[in-house]
Amino acid sequence: MCRLFRVLLYIYLSFSTATFTTRQAEAQSDPLPSWNDTAAKKNIEAFVDRVTKDGDHDFVPPEERIATFDNDGTLWVESPVYTQVVFAFTRIKAMAPQHLEWKTKQPFKGVLEGDMKAVAATGEKGILEITLATSAGMTNAEFEKSVSDWISQARDRRFNHPYNELIYQPMVELLAYLRSNGSKTFIVSGGDQEFMRPWTEKAYGIPPEQVVGSTIKTQFEMRDGQPVLMRLPQIGFIDDGPGKPVGINESIGRRPILAFGNSDGDLQMLEWTAAGAGPRLMLLVHHTDAAREYAYDRKSSVGKLDKALDEAIAKGWIVVSMKDDWKKIFPFQ
Amino acid sequence: MCRLFRVLLYIYLSFSTATFTTRQAEAQSDPLPSWNDTAAKKNIEAFVDRVTKDGDHDFVPPEERIATFDNDGTLWVESPVYTQVVFAFTRIKAMAPQHLEWKTKQPFKGVLEGDMKAVAATGEKGILEITLATSAGMTNAEFEKSVSDWISQARDRRFNHPYNELIYQPMVELLAYLRSNGSKTFIVSGGDQEFMRPWTEKAYGIPPEQVVGSTIKTQFEMRDGQPVLMRLPQIGFIDDGPGKPVGINESIGRRPILAFGNSDGDLQMLEWTAAGAGPRLMLLVHHTDAAREYAYDRKSSVGKLDKALDEAIAKGWIVVSMKDDWKKIFPFQ
Repeated sequence: MCRLFRVLLYIYLSFSTATFTTRQAEAQSDPLPSWNDTAAKKNIEAFVDRVTKDGDHDFVPPEERIATFDNDGTLWVESPVYTQVVFAFTRIKAMAPQHLEWKTKQPFKGVLEGDMKAVAATGEKGILEITLATSAGMTNAEFEKSVSDWISQARDRRFNHPYNELIYQPMVELLAYLRSNGSKTFIVSGGDQEFMRPWTEKAYGIPPEQVVGSTIKTQFEMRDGQPVLMRLPQIGFIDDGPGKPVGINESIGRRPILAFGNSDGDLQMLEWTAAGAGPRLMLLVHHTDAAREYAYDRKSSVGKLDKALDEAIAKGWIVVSMKDDWKKIFPFQ
Repeated sequence: MCRLFRVLLYIYLSFSTATFTTRQAEAQSDPLPSWNDTAAKKNIEAFVDRVTKDGDHDFVPPEERIATFDNDGTLWVESPVYTQVVFAFTRIKAMAPQHLEWKTKQPFKGVLEGDMKAVAATGEKGILEITLATSAGMTNAEFEKSVSDWISQARDRRFNHPYNELIYQPMVELLAYLRSNGSKTFIVSGGDQEFMRPWTEKAYGIPPEQVVGSTIKTQFEMRDGQPVLMRLPQIGFIDDGPGKPVGINESIGRRPILAFGNSDGDLQMLEWTAAGAGPRLMLLVHHTDAAREYAYDRKSSVGKLDKALDEAIAKGWIVVSMKDDWKKIFPFQ
């Protein structure tokens, strides 16, 4: 061999070896490091392998690998009360000086006095009044700003962290893992979609157009010659329970092949996903870890998991025990 | 040089040259070959250059390069009547044997007898009745099938082509060009979104989840133990005129930086787009080519373009003349 060729061959081989080593390292690195090596993790990985192998009987084209995730209790903390309720209560207190009538009017009086029993006694009607008082009667941009401002400085009392850091690290890894395998990931939540959109892209890698939630009706108006969207004091759509398949159809228009929830409010989304043809993955996050997060299910007023748990067990859906299946809960741990 | 090395060098150089030639050809190949080299095309290309140059003052991150397109009259033919109306009329005729009462009841009688004046006389109420009769009272899957079946065999009388081939080739190229420059392309149409979703991915490369339109209310139900979405005889949302910014906000949650329409029904979408900060592109397709397609604007009952044309001229939005700016209209020409 001539010298030049030998040098060239050496460079080539070094390069190939380097490439090979890098590839091997990539293959060996675990995309779900916060998951224990239990059945839940293995079943998820096996499902992804099945649907992504081209030529395989169970292959699903990338554009059909729609994955929908509930938010409260599935991607972030919902205990002891939904974060959006904490936000609304803070807003009621901030807005109280402009609403002296709230001093004597439930459910506002209860919120201002910290009397949660009085608030609870007003039922759904009370919750609706609080929601509309704190998130309607302003432009969409104004509401978005109030959410962004609040989430950047509010902190959960137990963990002393901003709420958008109280997200589940194993689920964040799962979202990224599914996307790296061609899935399009969506949030399908009972919460107000405008309460989520300002921060989901940074927290989960999910852009606003892939956030489906409940809505307040909005109206296009001209204000000082500038177009604005006014949030009217009227609920548009409740994206919960049987509303979730409706929301999925309206906003996505394709049936998911993977669906993730944690409560009875997710049951119909999982049923709708399960009823499609071909391979399907349905998963429930079960809150079983009082030490690291919370433990609740059948009797909880927030994130009640009862019927959906029975159906998951009966139908062999994956039930993740946060205590047993997750190495860590939050990114900051 | 030893022989082996010479062979290797030859292969390497051939490959490099081939690669270089291919790249050069790609750079030189026009992404908008069906557009004449007029101001419209140049302005579009200049805008794309501005927003995609990293480090430039006008740079827009890819995730914010949202582009929204009206469908009827902007991406496909809407004359002499909206294609969805042709579909509904065909369905009325097919369903008539099961609805003997239609023989004497307007607007159905008019449709069955081809008496368009009688249909028109029933106004918006009549159109609503026809819409609900032909697209509600069935599951979403059933409706989708009726659309797919119809569009695969119906043909436009003038051009003798299926309706999903009566799409504008320059706009198809523009969609692909914008996507290749990082944009996410959406349809935002007054038409029923379920009437578009079965065919937009193949025709335009726009997947169902990026099709925003008017809706019929749906309801989640169990039928023989299987979940279905029933289409109720009730309009959910009208995605037209001032409804377009509302629909954009609900389904996309981000303000477009590019918006494309052709009629007064698109005016608010363009105004909403224009009112954002940073670089913006607003464009109207003006139907000026009676020979190759149709010519209509201020006085047309379908796709009326009057106020939006005035505003486009006043504000310097791009107005595309189909006759002057487009080399060809349809892909099959």
